[in-house]
Amino acid sequence: MDMEILDRNLARTSIDTIRLLAADGVEKACSGHPGTPMEAAPIAYLLFTRHLRHNPANPDWPGRDRFILSCGHASMLLYSMLHLTGYDLALDDLKQFRQMGSRTPGHPEFGHTPGVETTTGPLGQGFAVGVGMAMGARLLAEQVHAELFDYRVFTLCSDGDMMEGVAAEAASLAGHLRLDNLTCIYLDNRITIEGRTELTFSDNTASRFLAYGWHVQQVEGENLPEIDEALVRATKDPRPSLIIARTHIGYGAPRKQDTAEAHGAPLGAEELRQTKLFFGRDPERFFDVPDAVKEHMLRVRQRGIVLEESWRNGLNEAVAGGNSALQSWLQAAEQPLPPGWDAALPHFPAGKDMATRQASGVTLNALAEVIPLLLGGSADLAPSNNTHLENAEAFGSAVSGRNIHFGVREHAMGAILNGLAHTPGLVPFGGTFLVFSDYMRPPMRLAAMMGLAPIYVFTHDSIGLGEDGPTHQPVEHLAALRAIPNLAVIRPCDANETAQAWRAALSNRQGPTALILTRQKLETLDRNIYASAEGVLRGGYILASEESPLRVVLVASGSEIQVALRTRMLLQAEGYGARVVSLPCWELFDAQGQAYRDQVLASGEVLRVAVEAGVGMGWERYIGTAGLTLCMRSFGASAPFEQLMEKYGFTAEQLVACIKQRL
Amino acid sequence: MDMEILDRNLARTSIDTIRLLAADGVEKACSGHPGTPMEAAPIAYLLFTRHLRHNPANPDWPGRDRFILSCGHASMLLYSMLHLTGYDLALDDLKQFRQMGSRTPGHPEFGHTPGVETTTGPLGQGFAVGVGMAMGARLLAEQVHAELFDYRVFTLCSDGDMMEGVAAEAASLAGHLRLDNLTCIYLDNRITIEGRTELTFSDNTASRFLAYGWHVQQVEGENLPEIDEALVRATKDPRPSLIIARTHIGYGAPRKQDTAEAHGAPLGAEELRQTKLFFGRDPERFFDVPDAVKEHMLRVRQRGIVLEESWRNGLNEAVAGGNSALQSWLQAAEQPLPPGWDAALPHFPAGKDMATRQASGVTLNALAEVIPLLLGGSADLAPSNNTHLENAEAFGSAVSGRNIHFGVREHAMGAILNGLAHTPGLVPFGGTFLVFSDYMRPPMRLAAMMGLAPIYVFTHDSIGLGEDGPTHQPVEHLAALRAIPNLAVIRPCDANETAQAWRAALSNRQGPTALILTRQKLETLDRNIYASAEGVLRGGYILASEESPLRVVLVASGSEIQVALRTRMLLQAEGYGARVVSLPCWELFDAQGQAYRDQVLASGEVLRVAVEAGVGMGWERYIGTAGLTLCMRSFGASAPFEQLMEKYGFTAEQLVACIKQRL
Repeated sequence: MDMEILDRNLARTSIDTIRLLAADGVEKACSGHPGTPMEAAPIAYLLFTRHLRHNPANPDWPGRDRFILSCGHASMLLYSMLHLTGYDLALDDLKQFRQMGSRTPGHPEFGHTPGVETTTGPLGQGFAVGVGMAMGARLLAEQVHAELFDYRVFTLCSDGDMMEGVAAEAASLAGHLRLDNLTCIYLDNRITIEGRTELTFSDNTASRFLAYGWHVQQVEGENLPEIDEALVRATKDPRPSLIIARTHIGYGAPRKQDTAEAHGAPLGAEELRQTKLFFGRDPERFFDVPDAVKEHMLRVRQRGIVLEESWRNGLNEAVAGGNSALQSWLQAAEQPLPPGWDAALPHFPAGKDMATRQASGVTLNALAEVIPLLLGGSADLAPSNNTHLENAEAFGSAVSGRNIHFGVREHAMGAILNGLAHTPGLVPFGGTFLVFSDYMRPPMRLAAMMGLAPIYVFTHDSIGLGEDGPTHQPVEHLAALRAIPNLAVIRPCDANETAQAWRAALSNRQGPTALILTRQKLETLDRNIYASAEGVLRGGYILASEESPLRVVLVASGSEIQVALRTRMLLQAEGYGARVVSLPCWELFDAQGQAYRDQVLASGEVLRVAVEAGVGMGWERYIGTAGLTLCMRSFGASAPFEQLMEKYGFTAEQLVACIKQRL
Repeated sequence: MDMEILDRNLARTSIDTIRLLAADGVEKACSGHPGTPMEAAPIAYLLFTRHLRHNPANPDWPGRDRFILSCGHASMLLYSMLHLTGYDLALDDLKQFRQMGSRTPGHPEFGHTPGVETTTGPLGQGFAVGVGMAMGARLLAEQVHAELFDYRVFTLCSDGDMMEGVAAEAASLAGHLRLDNLTCIYLDNRITIEGRTELTFSDNTASRFLAYGWHVQQVEGENLPEIDEALVRATKDPRPSLIIARTHIGYGAPRKQDTAEAHGAPLGAEELRQTKLFFGRDPERFFDVPDAVKEHMLRVRQRGIVLEESWRNGLNEAVAGGNSALQSWLQAAEQPLPPGWDAALPHFPAGKDMATRQASGVTLNALAEVIPLLLGGSADLAPSNNTHLENAEAFGSAVSGRNIHFGVREHAMGAILNGLAHTPGLVPFGGTFLVFSDYMRPPMRLAAMMGLAPIYVFTHDSIGLGEDGPTHQPVEHLAALRAIPNLAVIRPCDANETAQAWRAALSNRQGPTALILTRQKLETLDRNIYASAEGVLRGGYILASEESPLRVVLVASGSEIQVALRTRMLLQAEGYGARVVSLPCWELFDAQGQAYRDQVLASGEVLRVAVEAGVGMGWERYIGTAGLTLCMRSFGASAPFEQLMEKYGFTAEQLVACIKQRL
């Protein structure tokens, strides 16, 4: 941190420049959010010039502090800061705000703009991702190197972030874990889109965060020394730190300041003009950066280069000193999976019944032995999800082990997994019941959009969970997850497919993967009789071929493979040639060549039958509209699972009857 | 409330009976959760016998207090209470716990078991539904009759409920609104599935709820007078009330009490035997209800009949006295829509461009004039969702108007809508951006399961929202919502279809409806040229017929109808007969007869083309696998919407090119 004496005049001019860049950008785009950048400019200025240890010349420096704009709608604030401090973002980029193909989209997008640490916009997500990043930092500091990974996470939040449940969940966990490397600044502007926050929000936020176990300070949003000191004090407390800044949305806009009008639309030509006059600036100049400001702000880049250099020296010294954890991390940061990692995948002997969740637990534990930074846990269902790592410690307030107890907080878990996935070298996973994937779709969507690769372990995957009944039985969830672009959904049919599903999930570093696993036991197939489970890697494969001229192709996933195999036997006995295709993953299958897909699904006059204990939506793609879909058409019920499977038609006898009727 | 003197011995025997009924039920089912019923029995006993004003002889009495078991896994507690206090639930029903077709499913299901007020199980939902019920009660008390609707809502919660974000959101709103008719009892047992709560949860819950503006008390979970007094004090405070009861999971089970083992599995024969001995009961007796307990508990039913009778007398007097609000409510409670309500639906003149969100706002306001208990709002996006009722007041801490400011709390909004929908006569709606439907799927799913009929107003329905970019552009959401059984999803194509969509939504009283609306303006079609918008009520209809022999059927919804109509013109100009089918609602269309559907979609050798700015999943059902799906295959981008529509292929020229290639 640069503790040089604050030049108030230069600071003020810089801050006003930031505000006006944002207001100009929104005005030119005819779209966007000027108010929050204008209120938060003093805080952003102090952070970026005096507190954040970052290097604009290398946004990927692993030792940098992280800054997350949780109120992503204030994107012009971030873009202005990145431009002024010397990131690879030109003034011309700012002028292209919200335009097709520009580097300055409406909300900050990770991987799209240098210096954007995570994609934000949906409120609450950035705050919770920050908790995950702080956890990742603490784990690296503890397991790899304390000084090299003493970086800090800063999150800038709005009222909306404070109201969203995902942030509440994450704040509770952060307080519990005593994440002392996390500072959150909350812009208490008392305005939301519908009007003043008093319409709907009267929390005592300070008391609430104290109750979570946070350190809390309150400052005035225009008082630079006060903010500056609060940022320093935040680093010295053993708890995560919340700084509540009383700010004024649209600060400086004479008519719109402190009103909802300043939030989500351009100020308008005249108001913008008046705003510039308020700041003593020439109203005819747009995107104006005074030379003194330019020079002053670019010093951040120079300092950043020095900071990283010093860090790299430390790194080299430690490596030269033979720090093996660090050497291993350096490899993991490049490629999280060590060479030959998949030799650790277990092979399950045929004949022994085993739920796929159980096979997953065995596989996960085997992999954890060879992938040192594989870490995760469950939203309080570890014994059910089989996500516990036997040879690892818990991630607690004192020790940062690889078993994370997320608590009954699925939504925060999803976002925290994104924060961990942002941390170089880490391979995170998280588990809950499939039905509760509904609680965590927003961060899953963001992971898919960002190309992060957390692995979701979703067990209890159908009516096959039995007695817990319809509230716990997923029906629509397979379809709803498959609908998310760039999310791989894999539903293995037995223990060995489960091991291969883990192989596919870990091999997929370009997006998240959801493993869909049973509660109930399934037969472990004899792969001397059936095709190799490695077919999972192609998404779908012929598990059992027809033994007479092909009449029926049974396409299924997961637990319904068993009923498909029995159906095949019965059909064959009656002289109908039937094939069983195991299709655990649409995304992988769709990525195969047309020839392979045609070969697997067969062509010509055959009846294709999709069998899955979920809504059948989308299976038509594989079986044609002339095909037969045996699926769920309603919510389930509470009863032992064998009875449910029969009630909803998932028996070989019922299937055969339907098929023969159609033939 | 019955303040007769507490007979400690009889109370204790009754409480132990409740505990053992639950333990026996779980043991017999070989499945379930004994621990929480055992710890919570004293509280449930006091509530059901001394505090709840309810009538077991009529679970639908509108003036009754509501009891919600938010920790739905403790269902055997509720079933035991319902049985003992004389609801229509026999001891034999308890013996059928979790069995096929029984009235005692794994988690409480509304509409399935008399006395179950709402379906619970997914944690946090019951708590938030309770907030909605308390809001509904306050609205009825204020707008209909103060004394008749002075009922109270009681919610029983576990650690999980306290950790879930949805509960945090709802608690914050309840505190803000000063819902003095809400009592929540939190079972602070310090055990979760993964072990002791200290693994993951160290909130100071009392301080947290004080910060939300709640009244907070702490009691010992076995201290009957202390609990009793706390329940009384809760009614006297102007804030919602939280009672934190320090309890012991599996109370009385010598080996498993205070351990996670007592949570989710039968105690086991020997432990159950020891438990019965601990309570001084005969270990050989199962489902044992001593006569004294039976008689004592059934007095609740007698008292309930008297309570309701007195309430009905008050009702009759008030009606006789000419209370018109009450008369109107009596009708609404039977049939929420007054006769002829749909005459209020606006007709929009052709030619004027109008976003469907805007048409929705006009329609909603017109309907609010004729449906007095139509109420709702938005999760802080009212100006964008067009959900504000012009002639209604806000629902605040002092006045209970029909405009609800939910705050940036989509998840709680979804659950609160369920609570409002449970309130007789109310017709609730709630709005947010379609992309944020992901934040509220769990309560939407429960609404669909329960057959409640809240209406969701989801605007900004595609890349058509433009500059806000991919974080705000729904892509997978139409598919993901259509996958939910019993949820009607309607995406109208212009202003008049929007009015009809509202008609369809309000007419559907058997499940929830999601209205999917544009941000951008759309042409209001001239219905002299095109078919009547009332086709919406059949889910799909021929909007524009072919003018030469049919070659192409364009099937679309929402904003893509416009591009389909232009495509039709271009195709016709080239001599290809083309038809446009508007298919705003799959659920309604699927409910039509086969003949109608075949007629609309046409048969024979035609090319069917689905056009929708979302993932195309499921459209194959209507267009066949030989059809052409013009849809999104990725997330969107930030740019003006016209450019995005072109980039992703949604122009007539691009469509025509694809179609001609296929023809």
